[in-house]
Amino acid sequence: MQEKSVVIIGAGISGLKAASELYKLGYKSCVVLEARDRIGGRLYTVPGYKENKYDIGASWHHDTLINGLFLEELGLSKEERAHFVFDDDVAVIFDKDRGRVDNNPEMTLELLLEELIKFNELQFFEGLDVTDTSYFETIVKYLYERRDLLTDDQIKYLPQLARYMESWHGIDWKSMSSKCMEIAHQGRNAFVMNFDKIVKRISSTFPEEWLVMETEVTSIDTQGIKAVVKTNKGENYECDFVLVTIPQSILAHSLRPEPRKGRIEFTPPLTQKIQDAFKTAHYGALGKVVFEFEECCWSKKRSRALSLGKSSTDIINKVRDADDLASLIKRLDIDTEYKFEEGESWDFPLFFVNLAKHSDIPSLIMLMADPLTRHIESLDDKEKLYDFFEPVLAKLLEAFECSGSVTVDFDDKLKTGDQKGPILKNIFTTKWTQDDYALGAYSACVPGDDPLDLVLALTDNDGSKIRFAGEHTIMDGAGCAYGAWGSGKREAVFIAQKMGKI
Amino acid sequence: MQEKSVVIIGAGISGLKAASELYKLGYKSCVVLEARDRIGGRLYTVPGYKENKYDIGASWHHDTLINGLFLEELGLSKEERAHFVFDDDVAVIFDKDRGRVDNNPEMTLELLLEELIKFNELQFFEGLDVTDTSYFETIVKYLYERRDLLTDDQIKYLPQLARYMESWHGIDWKSMSSKCMEIAHQGRNAFVMNFDKIVKRISSTFPEEWLVMETEVTSIDTQGIKAVVKTNKGENYECDFVLVTIPQSILAHSLRPEPRKGRIEFTPPLTQKIQDAFKTAHYGALGKVVFEFEECCWSKKRSRALSLGKSSTDIINKVRDADDLASLIKRLDIDTEYKFEEGESWDFPLFFVNLAKHSDIPSLIMLMADPLTRHIESLDDKEKLYDFFEPVLAKLLEAFECSGSVTVDFDDKLKTGDQKGPILKNIFTTKWTQDDYALGAYSACVPGDDPLDLVLALTDNDGSKIRFAGEHTIMDGAGCAYGAWGSGKREAVFIAQKMGKI
Repeated sequence: MQEKSVVIIGAGISGLKAASELYKLGYKSCVVLEARDRIGGRLYTVPGYKENKYDIGASWHHDTLINGLFLEELGLSKEERAHFVFDDDVAVIFDKDRGRVDNNPEMTLELLLEELIKFNELQFFEGLDVTDTSYFETIVKYLYERRDLLTDDQIKYLPQLARYMESWHGIDWKSMSSKCMEIAHQGRNAFVMNFDKIVKRISSTFPEEWLVMETEVTSIDTQGIKAVVKTNKGENYECDFVLVTIPQSILAHSLRPEPRKGRIEFTPPLTQKIQDAFKTAHYGALGKVVFEFEECCWSKKRSRALSLGKSSTDIINKVRDADDLASLIKRLDIDTEYKFEEGESWDFPLFFVNLAKHSDIPSLIMLMADPLTRHIESLDDKEKLYDFFEPVLAKLLEAFECSGSVTVDFDDKLKTGDQKGPILKNIFTTKWTQDDYALGAYSACVPGDDPLDLVLALTDNDGSKIRFAGEHTIMDGAGCAYGAWGSGKREAVFIAQKMGKI
Repeated sequence: MQEKSVVIIGAGISGLKAASELYKLGYKSCVVLEARDRIGGRLYTVPGYKENKYDIGASWHHDTLINGLFLEELGLSKEERAHFVFDDDVAVIFDKDRGRVDNNPEMTLELLLEELIKFNELQFFEGLDVTDTSYFETIVKYLYERRDLLTDDQIKYLPQLARYMESWHGIDWKSMSSKCMEIAHQGRNAFVMNFDKIVKRISSTFPEEWLVMETEVTSIDTQGIKAVVKTNKGENYECDFVLVTIPQSILAHSLRPEPRKGRIEFTPPLTQKIQDAFKTAHYGALGKVVFEFEECCWSKKRSRALSLGKSSTDIINKVRDADDLASLIKRLDIDTEYKFEEGESWDFPLFFVNLAKHSDIPSLIMLMADPLTRHIESLDDKEKLYDFFEPVLAKLLEAFECSGSVTVDFDDKLKTGDQKGPILKNIFTTKWTQDDYALGAYSACVPGDDPLDLVLALTDNDGSKIRFAGEHTIMDGAGCAYGAWGSGKREAVFIAQKMGKI
């Protein structure tokens, strides 16, 4: 039995920040138990073709007007901090048949999306008892109620543009809560290159020996005066506080008896309040696919592009002729069912980051949402990945003013100069849905969820020796790196106050 | 002494709507006293060159997701309602030297303006006691605090783009309240052609004899059981309720003893609450200039354009080198002082509506704010107007892909076919600041104002026989035609309830 002041479970950014703060507050004896063989959790920088590096977890400092992590980084010298670029610009938007539809003064789709988002918001102002629906249903409701004020093109393309929100939430429009759909941006987004520098910096601010790697926590017993934490390595820790920073998806397994990797047995069990809150808490799967080229032969003007999912069959007439909303929702729901077959990438909105605009890296990073993510992350080879996305990729390159079709050279057989046009050297996908310690990306809301429930349940446990941190335990920056970071800081201060250190 | 149920003062849209509602509610004996020789007030459609008509007061149905007047119009046949078009699009933005700067993926000025607006909002979240400042000061504060995150071009052009808000409020950035600067749009804006149809329709829904024109109310005495209203024509009305719908600017004169046109003597005087509220209530002067051409020889793609005021001298270095915010504000304040000399139109942000995009009318409607409005509306001839705006107009036409310089033909001397390029046939300006019954455009907020104060003071007078309506008496749609309309409806219902009619 080892004695510690605080045992932190998880060396993601919330756990690392908590350890860093506790050390700064004078703690001499803490431990950070990490199941993986690396730190950072869902901040994860991986190598690609040549010297390239990619963040396949979080990629941005969001909300840079209020982002505490960003402001901390700004206080450092350029050598100490991770490089970032403000990469927001007006996205190139393209459709399979129509080509580019962004910034079109007749369709004004971007302005219409703003109106739709306001329409969505106003529904819930009508009363406190308005039932939450899926975002898909809200979109159809908007089309139905405003059809006389919309052109045919607007009816056709707006729904697919509206699905852009999928790339924020990591879940599809049919699973997405209308009530939680809107994202109130607090300033521009800064793309980080790369987050490993931040992870490393924070982890260097407390003693190296606090970190214990490849160690799963199996149980936490808080029945005695001290909490007892046991690991799969047979180590036991006795401590004043346990800070649990494992993802919401993994924590959810503690509510069920079945053993599984990463599951923690709580004695006594997690409170009823937490158990109830989990009933209205869900988890998404934002995934990424990286396309690495030999060199950039496309436009570097725009950093963002969105491919529209294909419209439902004859949506214009169906919207115009509908007699009632409920049957229209049903019809369009059937028309927009997904397929996961090769070349069916036009069923989904795909968001692309043109890395070449702000760096020397001739790559495109694609963002996708569940259920596509789950399918793509299960594909086991590059050819299958490429086959799936090939049509959209070709159209994207066209929208980016790139001529010539893609030559695939995964095996590095081409000689330099052999080939004109874009040469695809590598393609890879995230594996978050297959990762036993992540099981997806981050928290998300389905209709009826209230993210505040879980946040309150996990932070209101005032008398407990167990505390929680992570992206799912905070409202300011929920789902974001800086939210997780902030929650770690919050808990360190809370624990120090409780223990009379401050 | 004539006996009436209700005397309505002012035949603007709030007074007309109130009369309409009262008639619908069963009232048989009301009167609407109007000082002018026309109805509509600040809804005013005037003839121009050839058969053209222009609204030189309100021009748009704003907030079309919640706009009650718009929804009422939608319920009518196309013949009965006023034609409208959704004319929002992404504005062409141009600078004197740089030319077009809109939708520029390097500068991303539009996105930066969003961040600035959020920055402004967040200041007031810091605490309830944050002092309101001018919008100008907030802009400088943003530049100062975020200068390391802004490029030189962004520092140079953002402040002038941010002045776009002047065209909403009708006052300049230095007079504008930061706290009240943001406008929460509730849906798209629909440009109306023309409002006279709506004015006429509403006025046709109550007996014609209720309308008494060219009659100023001089006094209202509510000391007796009935209210007594006296006019400059020597008529006296005795009534249960008086509904005062005169503009805020005119009502303000009742607080001072000096006699003037339109002033009403209240006995007893207006309540202390109203008098106090007027101390934090101000009034702007959105003005318009209409440029009428023989034909459209410019692009019909975009309906909106914004000319940027010229930047202050060497603003980039001043922002970068500033040691403190207060002195930077002082320096930039001096650098951006206005001149009203000929050709100094580059001192101001000017907003243009390209009428040719949505109609057959080859005209440009320009919006301007105080103090420019006051100066321009005092100019007494077309040549002077043209001389002032000529440089901006030339640059605008260039931004609208129009080649050839403007030929002025106010006297109609050119023969058809004589001349290529744009032929300016007429130019005229609004005269709201010179209009004794308007004295400007509509209510506006200077730093420290709270528009709610006046709204509460004018509507909370529960025991009084005097009621108020108009754009300044309502929060939903404040300053808008639909707000005024809604306030008239509200007061009709209030009076009918008090009198036991409903």
